[in-house]
Amino acid sequence: MANRSPQPEPPRSSFAIVRSIPTRWMDNDHYGHVNNVTYYSYFDTAVNGWLIEATGTDIRTLPSIGIVAETSCRFLKELSFPEIIEVGLALERLGRSSVVYNIALFRAGEADAAATGRFVHVYVDAATREVVPVPDGIRAALGSLPAATGIQQ
Amino acid sequence: MANRSPQPEPPRSSFAIVRSIPTRWMDNDHYGHVNNVTYYSYFDTAVNGWLIEATGTDIRTLPSIGIVAETSCRFLKELSFPEIIEVGLALERLGRSSVVYNIALFRAGEADAAATGRFVHVYVDAATREVVPVPDGIRAALGSLPAATGIQQ
Amino acid sequence: MANRSPQPEPPRSSFAIVRSIPTRWMDNDHYGHVNNVTYYSYFDTAVNGWLIEATGTDIRTLPSIGIVAETSCRFLKELSFPEIIEVGLALERLGRSSVVYNIALFRAGEADAAATGRFVHVYVDAATREVVPVPDGIRAALGSLPAATGIQQ
Amino acid sequence: MANRSPQPEPPRSSFAIVRSIPTRWMDNDHYGHVNNVTYYSYFDTAVNGWLIEATGTDIRTLPSIGIVAETSCRFLKELSFPEIIEVGLALERLGRSSVVYNIALFRAGEADAAATGRFVHVYVDAATREVVPVPDGIRAALGSLPAATGIQQ
Repeated sequence: MANRSPQPEPPRSSFAIVRSIPTRWMDNDHYGHVNNVTYYSYFDTAVNGWLIEATGTDIRTLPSIGIVAETSCRFLKELSFPEIIEVGLALERLGRSSVVYNIALFRAGEADAAATGRFVHVYVDAATREVVPVPDGIRAALGSLPAATGIQQ
Repeated sequence: MANRSPQPEPPRSSFAIVRSIPTRWMDNDHYGHVNNVTYYSYFDTAVNGWLIEATGTDIRTLPSIGIVAETSCRFLKELSFPEIIEVGLALERLGRSSVVYNIALFRAGEADAAATGRFVHVYVDAATREVVPVPDGIRAALGSLPAATGIQQ
Repeated sequence: MANRSPQPEPPRSSFAIVRSIPTRWMDNDHYGHVNNVTYYSYFDTAVNGWLIEATGTDIRTLPSIGIVAETSCRFLKELSFPEIIEVGLALERLGRSSVVYNIALFRAGEADAAATGRFVHVYVDAATREVVPVPDGIRAALGSLPAATGIQQ
Repeated sequence: MANRSPQPEPPRSSFAIVRSIPTRWMDNDHYGHVNNVTYYSYFDTAVNGWLIEATGTDIRTLPSIGIVAETSCRFLKELSFPEIIEVGLALERLGRSSVVYNIALFRAGEADAAATGRFVHVYVDAATREVVPVPDGIRAALGSLPAATGIQQ
């Protein structure tokens, strides 16, 4: 398959941070599995949910906000309703203005990922949408987010 | 920004096939722009809608169906409700079992993309989900889908 | 069927205002038809899209905004991807602070509704969320929105 | 407010069955609260999730399936991301072919509902979509679903 940007496939044990998201009835599409689009909703719910908890702040009210600059996903196994997805979250790279997360989705009790992806936030001024440095509070929280172990960056 | 897989950014004129999708009220998220997840819904609506028209067939009822193996998107401009998105669709690669599409989203009347992405279908047996060759009818239709002009593959 | 609040079922010709919304691939759920939840997205896209056009204003930036207080829908026919839904919009009642819309969804070329519903906006102060009168600009626009003809209110 | 079909507002203690659904980042719309459409996704996730558990069956594979004939919702409080919604589920009426559920959404720890609604399933033949009796297995499960206490039907 055309795969110009091979992504590592870390097992569940590579992720120190794992968040649970239950699927919803309407996540399933015509083919009886979770629609590909919806996987990205698990990504952005996990990233933003973790950020809110880790910073203890409603990040949406900060003067600088993270907007999504790039995402990707490889779909390895079907998901369905009902089930509880475990979302592994790891830091790939913390830049001046951007944060790159590694993400993997796991079905309950499985070591091999059902999907792997990357999620890139770029921080911008909430009003002007000019690119700005990652806010200090976010940067501090990211200091506590480990990289996925066993991944060749 | 972390960009390990640079994708070309073809202008609107590179796409022979352009499909229109209006945004919806609920596409906008907390930040007052179309949520990143929803861009992928424009991708899969454009690809599948084109396939249904180009084949003259309800592709969902074929013995072999295309399931999504990989997608990616770079978000270049904000979109919002209400507006009509023009989705450029081009063939990057037609393999034995897989099809890779280049996709770009344009705001009405703009030459530069608001987002660019890739969308990979792999064909599987509808019942067993074993990988199979791209069905003849789909392959024939794809013969009429040009590559985006001016893109270095 | 349990139907304590019988709603009229006006034909397409009862609606002076009709707006088009194409379905999306992911609108279809496990049963191969548009999921019930998504019908309400057609409702709120039609109402808010009409309000933005009719007022010539981005209603989201006004000091008073319409938030949804009540909706209902009766599902009469299945919808699917791909198709273009025609959304009939009519004024049932304009109160001091609230607006009640009659809505009906039609499949292209059909006189009988695929769904009928009601949609109630209550206007609130955008900051405090206290109930306020319908803003003048909105009230003026609603003056141009006819009731559905042939409906017994 | 225009309210032709007053619905009771049972407290959380009226519901013997309560299911938890966490909100997602993209549930919030332009106004920074959960979009009205999404409330109905909580409804149909709760009903179908309960049915699958209570019957011990993947109800989607039965020869008769429940399709949604009518829903309604009154929106009483704003919801947001992140939070865990508690969905109270009760039986209002079990007919020959239809089932009417009372539903209420509660914010964690609150006794008063954030939304109340009704959800009506009609059972149809999965192939022909002709109305059929409620399947025995579903009917048996519904025997264990109490009505909301303290509601005047």
